[in-house]
Amino acid sequence: MADKARQGKAPAQGQRPHVVIVGGGFGGLAAAKALAGAAVDITLIDKRNHHLFQPLLYQVATAGLSPADIAGSIRAILARQPNVRVLLDRVYGIDRIRQRVILGEGEPIAYDWLIIATGATHSYFGREEWAPFAPGIKTIDDATAIRRRVLLALERAETEADPDRRKALLTFVVIGGGPTGVEMAGAIAELARQSVSRDFRHITPHCSRIILLQRGDRLLPSFPTLLSAKAHIGVEELGVDVRLGADVQDISASGVTVDGEFIPAATTIWAAGVMASRAAEWLGCKADRAGRVKVGADLHPDDGGRIFVIGDTAACTDATGRALPGVAPVAKQQGQHVARVICATLAGREAPPFRYRDWGNMATIGRSRAVGDFGRVRVSGLAAWVLWCVAHIWFLTGHRNRVSVGLTWLWSYLTYQRGARLITGDVAPDLPATFELAPALGRKARNV
Amino acid sequence: MADKARQGKAPAQGQRPHVVIVGGGFGGLAAAKALAGAAVDITLIDKRNHHLFQPLLYQVATAGLSPADIAGSIRAILARQPNVRVLLDRVYGIDRIRQRVILGEGEPIAYDWLIIATGATHSYFGREEWAPFAPGIKTIDDATAIRRRVLLALERAETEADPDRRKALLTFVVIGGGPTGVEMAGAIAELARQSVSRDFRHITPHCSRIILLQRGDRLLPSFPTLLSAKAHIGVEELGVDVRLGADVQDISASGVTVDGEFIPAATTIWAAGVMASRAAEWLGCKADRAGRVKVGADLHPDDGGRIFVIGDTAACTDATGRALPGVAPVAKQQGQHVARVICATLAGREAPPFRYRDWGNMATIGRSRAVGDFGRVRVSGLAAWVLWCVAHIWFLTGHRNRVSVGLTWLWSYLTYQRGARLITGDVAPDLPATFELAPALGRKARNV
Repeated sequence: MADKARQGKAPAQGQRPHVVIVGGGFGGLAAAKALAGAAVDITLIDKRNHHLFQPLLYQVATAGLSPADIAGSIRAILARQPNVRVLLDRVYGIDRIRQRVILGEGEPIAYDWLIIATGATHSYFGREEWAPFAPGIKTIDDATAIRRRVLLALERAETEADPDRRKALLTFVVIGGGPTGVEMAGAIAELARQSVSRDFRHITPHCSRIILLQRGDRLLPSFPTLLSAKAHIGVEELGVDVRLGADVQDISASGVTVDGEFIPAATTIWAAGVMASRAAEWLGCKADRAGRVKVGADLHPDDGGRIFVIGDTAACTDATGRALPGVAPVAKQQGQHVARVICATLAGREAPPFRYRDWGNMATIGRSRAVGDFGRVRVSGLAAWVLWCVAHIWFLTGHRNRVSVGLTWLWSYLTYQRGARLITGDVAPDLPATFELAPALGRKARNV
Repeated sequence: MADKARQGKAPAQGQRPHVVIVGGGFGGLAAAKALAGAAVDITLIDKRNHHLFQPLLYQVATAGLSPADIAGSIRAILARQPNVRVLLDRVYGIDRIRQRVILGEGEPIAYDWLIIATGATHSYFGREEWAPFAPGIKTIDDATAIRRRVLLALERAETEADPDRRKALLTFVVIGGGPTGVEMAGAIAELARQSVSRDFRHITPHCSRIILLQRGDRLLPSFPTLLSAKAHIGVEELGVDVRLGADVQDISASGVTVDGEFIPAATTIWAAGVMASRAAEWLGCKADRAGRVKVGADLHPDDGGRIFVIGDTAACTDATGRALPGVAPVAKQQGQHVARVICATLAGREAPPFRYRDWGNMATIGRSRAVGDFGRVRVSGLAAWVLWCVAHIWFLTGHRNRVSVGLTWLWSYLTYQRGARLITGDVAPDLPATFELAPALGRKARNV
């Protein structure tokens, strides 16, 4: 049964346990790599063919980097690991009784161990109708779609004669004051105010408005207060209008209603909420408000001794009961931990519980400033930014991407230019109907 | 009137003649640059925001380069030239009586001189129903769509158990034996046989079939016979099955019917025919069979003394009556020539007729071989390939792109890898219905 389900893959060393990993993000990839030497056969399933370095996705959305700079074929990454096979398919469910993963295209796959690392997507807190007007940024397609919107808004502003429409075209609203929102707002400010001002004849750096809306009382709430304040000053100096305690009441194609005020804006970007993938539904087990599967220090959901849930899909707490953040290091360490647990179990040993080692937390603000929180050590300014650049290049997957991103950053730093200012997709047909000032006409813009 | 139509652009030196250029390809850009010092105001209109280096587009389609490596924002390219403004819009027609260009979105634009450089698209010789099954490669979106198809076919082949379906998934048919077809077939052969064979568990280099169909009796018909023969041997050594005198009778989602034989193939690429853009229709003047506007040595269509048609949109002959080929150097030289004519006319001088200086012609065949025809000098093999690389980097627009392409090629050459193996677009939903063996079910694959 299990053999047939593996679709003809003959395990090299006979009946080795089969570890199925769902998701080729930070968690899934770390688990697969950490099992390189183990006497198991691994199948890694992802609905996309590439691993994505999400922390730099906002730079693709703001035309700084190319998609291929921050993504790599999962197959290529794992090519030299003979005990892994990679499967491009979508998971539709998990049959816990028969220990099988149900796929969209292929035959069900039997597992001995299952690692679910399917990540998260954006959540509109029950206002899913906002999605077409305020896209989030989780995939390469999200990023190129946002890039397209931002660049098209600038293009249209250049020829728009009506001052009100022009102002709306040059207003960019970013919703959410976490690292993604702060980095996005800073990058748009730089794009709209510095990089492109030389190229346009009518847009001057003072025309653009970038508004960052944060529901809480400070930016970067996961950072110490002092660094939040520094980030706040930093983005404001880039020309971003920061509004704290902002209650977003409505989003349409025409703009955003916040605290009773309507802000006409052609471009709105959602960086506020995340919702875990549907793993809890697949497993039929408890989820927290963000859809994450509750796991213990063993990373198992409820009684599922053969199933691990890791990364953004899991709701896990540290020893003090504090929820672990949805960041790459947590996912990576959990993936590595699960691999150790599997190896220990195979060897008949007891595995220790998972403990997260928090090496620190960074966010960048524009071209030469960042904040970093490393427990007792806190850095900000240029030094933090250099550290941020070095760290992100270091953690990128693949030498080629490291060189490419490093050189692109150097070039951008020296020239103030963005190298990937491409509007892709068929541009002209949707030009006329894409932006309407009157909120009632918002529906027209759905196909943008 | 003319002033209003220029949408508020105040000519710096009062009433300077207005040159409108339609198209930001090689021809249009060359004309704009060559008019940098002229006492004219220039408006360059393109429906896309980027200039594309089309000769390398096949490398984007085969995952070797990123789109941004071979494309650059037209605005950024012309940023330092104050007498140009760039307009992102689609041209719908030309009002020759009132000397105005009719746009999709903006107000009509009045011209004193009009340069039409709108290029060409692919033509299916009246079989437009083949388009969804055999995409051509003219834009970045074309290239990423083909990349997606090729990579998805390999992914599906990896898990396909049925040997017939698997064989069809690993069959790639390229139609057209000109430079694009030869380069595309060679690049697919390398991708399917070398770059990915390490990463897949079931696909071996011998599984893939790449078939290059050429209607004529030799490849690269625009080259000398000896170089055609060398190219033929070269692609065959890469594993390409070349079929000369091939008459393509039908193309469906399942494969290609050629000379009465049905070849099951999941991926078919069209590199056979080009059709000029609709300039002849706009101008209401004569076109040749490929839709090109017939122009004389003055590059004017019929009696249109204020209108120039250049590049792939124009049918132009040299002094001996030979038709000029649809290549970048012709378009560039014509753009520069038109600029000289305008300057001469402004100065009250007579302009000489256009004469094409043919510097030579090159095509590459895989990773270390090319052919080059420079009149009396003909080169082939490794030396030609090095020359090809140097020439293409030299002619690329922008230092950043030159460095990026140069390093990417070096990396690919050393590692045999492709750096841009991304399947973008939502992958999984269209996985099930995309490929059917039975021709009757072909319609299903339209949405691939």
